[in-house]
Amino acid sequence: MTDARQPATRHLISINDLTNDEIESVFETAASYLEAQRDPDVPHRIKHSSETARGRILASLFYEPSTRTRLSFESAMLRLGGASITSADPATASTAKGESLADSVRVISNYADLIVLRHPRDGAARLAAKYAGVPVINGGDGSHEHPTQTLCDLFTLRRENRDLKGLNVALSGDLRGSRTIHSFIYALARFNANLILMPAKGMGLPEHVDRRLREEFRCVPAPTSDLKAADASVDALYVTADQPHQLSLLTEPDLGAPIDIASKLAQVDVVYVTRFQKERWKDKEQEYPKIGTNFLKATKYSGTRVMHPLPRVDELDVEFDADPRAVYFQQAAYGVPVRMAIIAALLGLAGERSLKQHAGGFAPTKQVLYSRPPQTGLRCANPNCIVHDPLERHYATNDFHLDMRHGSTLRCLYCEGEIDGFVAADRQTRQFAGFDPALHCPDEVFGDDVVLFASEDDARAAGFGPAAAGHGEAA
Amino acid sequence: MTDARQPATRHLISINDLTNDEIESVFETAASYLEAQRDPDVPHRIKHSSETARGRILASLFYEPSTRTRLSFESAMLRLGGASITSADPATASTAKGESLADSVRVISNYADLIVLRHPRDGAARLAAKYAGVPVINGGDGSHEHPTQTLCDLFTLRRENRDLKGLNVALSGDLRGSRTIHSFIYALARFNANLILMPAKGMGLPEHVDRRLREEFRCVPAPTSDLKAADASVDALYVTADQPHQLSLLTEPDLGAPIDIASKLAQVDVVYVTRFQKERWKDKEQEYPKIGTNFLKATKYSGTRVMHPLPRVDELDVEFDADPRAVYFQQAAYGVPVRMAIIAALLGLAGERSLKQHAGGFAPTKQVLYSRPPQTGLRCANPNCIVHDPLERHYATNDFHLDMRHGSTLRCLYCEGEIDGFVAADRQTRQFAGFDPALHCPDEVFGDDVVLFASEDDARAAGFGPAAAGHGEAA
Amino acid sequence: MTDARQPATRHLISINDLTNDEIESVFETAASYLEAQRDPDVPHRIKHSSETARGRILASLFYEPSTRTRLSFESAMLRLGGASITSADPATASTAKGESLADSVRVISNYADLIVLRHPRDGAARLAAKYAGVPVINGGDGSHEHPTQTLCDLFTLRRENRDLKGLNVALSGDLRGSRTIHSFIYALARFNANLILMPAKGMGLPEHVDRRLREEFRCVPAPTSDLKAADASVDALYVTADQPHQLSLLTEPDLGAPIDIASKLAQVDVVYVTRFQKERWKDKEQEYPKIGTNFLKATKYSGTRVMHPLPRVDELDVEFDADPRAVYFQQAAYGVPVRMAIIAALLGLAGERSLKQHAGGFAPTKQVLYSRPPQTGLRCANPNCIVHDPLERHYATNDFHLDMRHGSTLRCLYCEGEIDGFVAADRQTRQFAGFDPALHCPDEVFGDDVVLFASEDDARAAGFGPAAAGHGEAA
Repeated sequence: MTDARQPATRHLISINDLTNDEIESVFETAASYLEAQRDPDVPHRIKHSSETARGRILASLFYEPSTRTRLSFESAMLRLGGASITSADPATASTAKGESLADSVRVISNYADLIVLRHPRDGAARLAAKYAGVPVINGGDGSHEHPTQTLCDLFTLRRENRDLKGLNVALSGDLRGSRTIHSFIYALARFNANLILMPAKGMGLPEHVDRRLREEFRCVPAPTSDLKAADASVDALYVTADQPHQLSLLTEPDLGAPIDIASKLAQVDVVYVTRFQKERWKDKEQEYPKIGTNFLKATKYSGTRVMHPLPRVDELDVEFDADPRAVYFQQAAYGVPVRMAIIAALLGLAGERSLKQHAGGFAPTKQVLYSRPPQTGLRCANPNCIVHDPLERHYATNDFHLDMRHGSTLRCLYCEGEIDGFVAADRQTRQFAGFDPALHCPDEVFGDDVVLFASEDDARAAGFGPAAAGHGEAA
Repeated sequence: MTDARQPATRHLISINDLTNDEIESVFETAASYLEAQRDPDVPHRIKHSSETARGRILASLFYEPSTRTRLSFESAMLRLGGASITSADPATASTAKGESLADSVRVISNYADLIVLRHPRDGAARLAAKYAGVPVINGGDGSHEHPTQTLCDLFTLRRENRDLKGLNVALSGDLRGSRTIHSFIYALARFNANLILMPAKGMGLPEHVDRRLREEFRCVPAPTSDLKAADASVDALYVTADQPHQLSLLTEPDLGAPIDIASKLAQVDVVYVTRFQKERWKDKEQEYPKIGTNFLKATKYSGTRVMHPLPRVDELDVEFDADPRAVYFQQAAYGVPVRMAIIAALLGLAGERSLKQHAGGFAPTKQVLYSRPPQTGLRCANPNCIVHDPLERHYATNDFHLDMRHGSTLRCLYCEGEIDGFVAADRQTRQFAGFDPALHCPDEVFGDDVVLFASEDDARAAGFGPAAAGHGEAA
Repeated sequence: MTDARQPATRHLISINDLTNDEIESVFETAASYLEAQRDPDVPHRIKHSSETARGRILASLFYEPSTRTRLSFESAMLRLGGASITSADPATASTAKGESLADSVRVISNYADLIVLRHPRDGAARLAAKYAGVPVINGGDGSHEHPTQTLCDLFTLRRENRDLKGLNVALSGDLRGSRTIHSFIYALARFNANLILMPAKGMGLPEHVDRRLREEFRCVPAPTSDLKAADASVDALYVTADQPHQLSLLTEPDLGAPIDIASKLAQVDVVYVTRFQKERWKDKEQEYPKIGTNFLKATKYSGTRVMHPLPRVDELDVEFDADPRAVYFQQAAYGVPVRMAIIAALLGLAGERSLKQHAGGFAPTKQVLYSRPPQTGLRCANPNCIVHDPLERHYATNDFHLDMRHGSTLRCLYCEGEIDGFVAADRQTRQFAGFDPALHCPDEVFGDDVVLFASEDDARAAGFGPAAAGHGEAA
């Protein structure tokens, strides 16, 4: 839908859509807004009535409940001098009439200069960005990502004078379903922090996130039972319980033999607590780690900053609120200046710190795009991916990135879930075979006649036969 | 409720509340806003920050789901420099406490300068206008009308350099329940376009709309089986399938014998597709025409513009989006400048192009008003009319217009549904008789003692007896 | 949560948070806004585009349905030149994820300069004020109070040139569950009006409101069957039907023997009608007084002003709308200027008429605060009090005011419900005894070791034994 004459529109769907330098730029802008707000020499009225975004409109499209993300974006737009239009309730929106997200954002692009979207489906924001004529900000898409929360989190650490490089960050609770964790963990790895995983039972990192940390973000896993010295070429190090829910392993100082790793982690600089998202889990009564003064009394937590994206339920003790180590209300407070900076950067209103057109995000590995119509061949394997939303069935093409380093893993363009085993068919020969990058993707471009399938059976069902022998089977 | 000292407030409830000249004025204003937005010499910030409606407030009252109508009105108000207050969810509004629409709009008239209303009941907007102290815009009332959508549609045709006079416009799908179609069809007839009806099975035009087209808007029906030459005095011509759902008749060039009509319709200039509004139909699985590249491959559609008010479901192929004949996203794009022009005209902020107080709309026939309290006599026969909403039982008076040309058809003031057979009773004599305009409505004013009833039985139940004989029966 | 370095933030939770002088100041500001709006010499655009609150943001947090209160606040903020952010639907807010009100307002304090809150629980607004970093306005909390409605009501009477002193005000309908009535009745008593209670059956004033009227606001009850001359030291007088629902007693001139009282009430200056809040009552079909032209035909009502906070259902005849005595739409019309004045006063933008920091509200009696953690000892006895909301279980401390004049009644800080019989235990001696102000609250401060319990059984269950004998029983 992009007009070829126009420069490409920048969106913020994944934290990896921004380079490290761009993130630093956003923080500089946010800091300048914060200082202006706090400057006692600037009258209150002037502080708040910036003219930066005068006449600009933000559309808030929330297909899931939200208070803080939506209101902080709308507040940020108002503080910049702009205004907003809001659709906050799925039941009263056009989806109630069966409208696709793709159509909705195309239409709303005419009403606003910027869209912030929350959606229950993984990858919905990327689909929206594909169809929107204006910048799209991901305000949380399923269990995928929540990049603006991560920017608030990183900004909070920066304001606490924490250098991200070498920072020991423990992540507690639901690491599987928390979109906030996924965006945060990529950013931490990119800024060379150490990650200590403290998942609730069965809520460890999704496999593809774990793989990306190791393969793409140069993390070294350091299982507590078998720690090895970090290689100098390694960007980040992460420590995970080798048995799910063995939190005690991490709250003890006996992390293992190799002294440098153990001493590296002798202090936990940050504990990041996540909410038990009961709405996403079937077993609502399962155990969930609870963080509070008692948990944090070990020496290693003496200087820890405790963070939480909020809202919280019971996983973070209210009694801890008065502890100087608690910074979660500060995180929330930074929501407005950070989101002001994001809006200004995307709209090109932040001067030198505006996001450049055509500039890419963080992309360490070369990737090749495979794209086929909705009804053709391989579909994303993630059942919560936006491509499986019935309303998007005509719009959600089968788009995957192939990682050329490995040549055998596809990553869904929308939800970034991964697929490992698949077969390739040729529309000319009507034959299929195991996927071979050199054959099916020469010169790093997929041949027009290549169609991928999840399995040989799927290829056969679509009328293809095996390449070597048995052409008759296809009939 | 109108203050007699104030000039009458202009509302936009039906497309017929505007004269053709007034519609042209709205388009001129919209075009000027559009040019200003596109002028590369005007900085973006200035374009959008018009001061036209500075300090004015629009109240959005939506009793039915909406995204595009509500957001485009709110965007339009912001683009004009105004602001809006919104009640978008019936479940959280005062109706949940049992408040009438009549009371709601009276109160909200104190909070805003203008009200845009969407409501599931036919005629709700007219009732609201009766009680509001500020201009009311109909944002869609039941199956009645949706005039601002029609203004966007006509403006789109104008921008496509289409002269409405003699334009052949095919209307496909739900012509019965689509308020968009009803407003559009009146406007097309008034601007002398030809209408080609392509209804889904059982979804033809409501009888009273069909009658108005023929009797009031000087349309000549041209059934495909019996086409006759158009009379020079005819404003518009419309062609309808003589059997419901016989779409093939219209997609074939063999429209019948008389050559001038057939050649008139040799080209279809516009196909206007409507959504299957499943929420309004009981049989949700019924057949519905689907328009796409395949349907539109006939020569007669070679230069056709395909329109759709959106949202669409399955009746319009997504594959057609890239076709140059598709203008439906353009229709949506014009939503903001056209609604800016409507707001400015109603608020008297459009200079010479503002709507004049006391000026009438399009009203070719002389009509006489009959008005009685809610509990007295004849009620509207349309069960979805606002007069049958229990919350409005004290407010929705029995108001009908009598068409003096015929003298035997009443049109409900609110929903414009019609009633043909009725009797007239006299409160003095306590007698009823068949309605006689000369007797009951002399000098084109209803006598104070005349009460109309749907039937003799109803008149008897109210204590009246037949005029000629049998006075005893009334007891 | 208040920052000790900051001056205390003023809130408007109860009408008694304002002194009579402060109420007069709000009215002066409101009158000035009203005059500016009506001044024909000021162009419309200027009137409405005040710059008073430019750059300020109001957060509307509505956990219960509302149209007029929310929209009138948002309109008021816009008319002052400010803006608003809105969370109007509990189902789409963070509470759907299990977030406490205490956390929500702490976070939202970062997004807005002012919060207006509606909540189904009594006392919710006081809890919110305790945690918010910005002023909180109570937009209605359960059956407790609705102070801004009362300010609109009093302002209406003032504009009708009614002196509140000695004004005879009849209050009809649901006096038990109507928060509007409770705020209104305190204000009327404080301004020395006479109150005539006309409750529906079983809907008389709550006991603690009745007691406060008599004990704190110096009202003299004047039962119709036993009227006595008012003492000169009495501020207000109120008359109640000695049998519930005996409205006829009050519509007759034969109020009793003592002539001065009877003549005092010979004219009813105001009838204030309240809605039957079916959502709060189990018996939805019970009788409810209906006020209309018929009821108001007695001589004593000849100059009466009829008021209603709206929305109405059936308790106030629509036919009465055209009567010059009806002022309820006027009440609604004053909603915007009065709320503009409240906002300006709380934000310190009303110049000399801004609310002073640290200034107290109306507080005629000396009160001592008792405060203990949520799980410790005596809880509020009102089941609808915010302290019993499961989401607030960690935040709603057991806070009560002790009235030193009586020394035996506790008033809940949140809902203002009262508790009479309770026992006091000592954490040092592990003993409990009947409460004795001199012993447990010496120097008008509760001893640190004192814990109150609703009953001896509760104290025993918590491990305390009776003071005099039987220490063994505690085991």
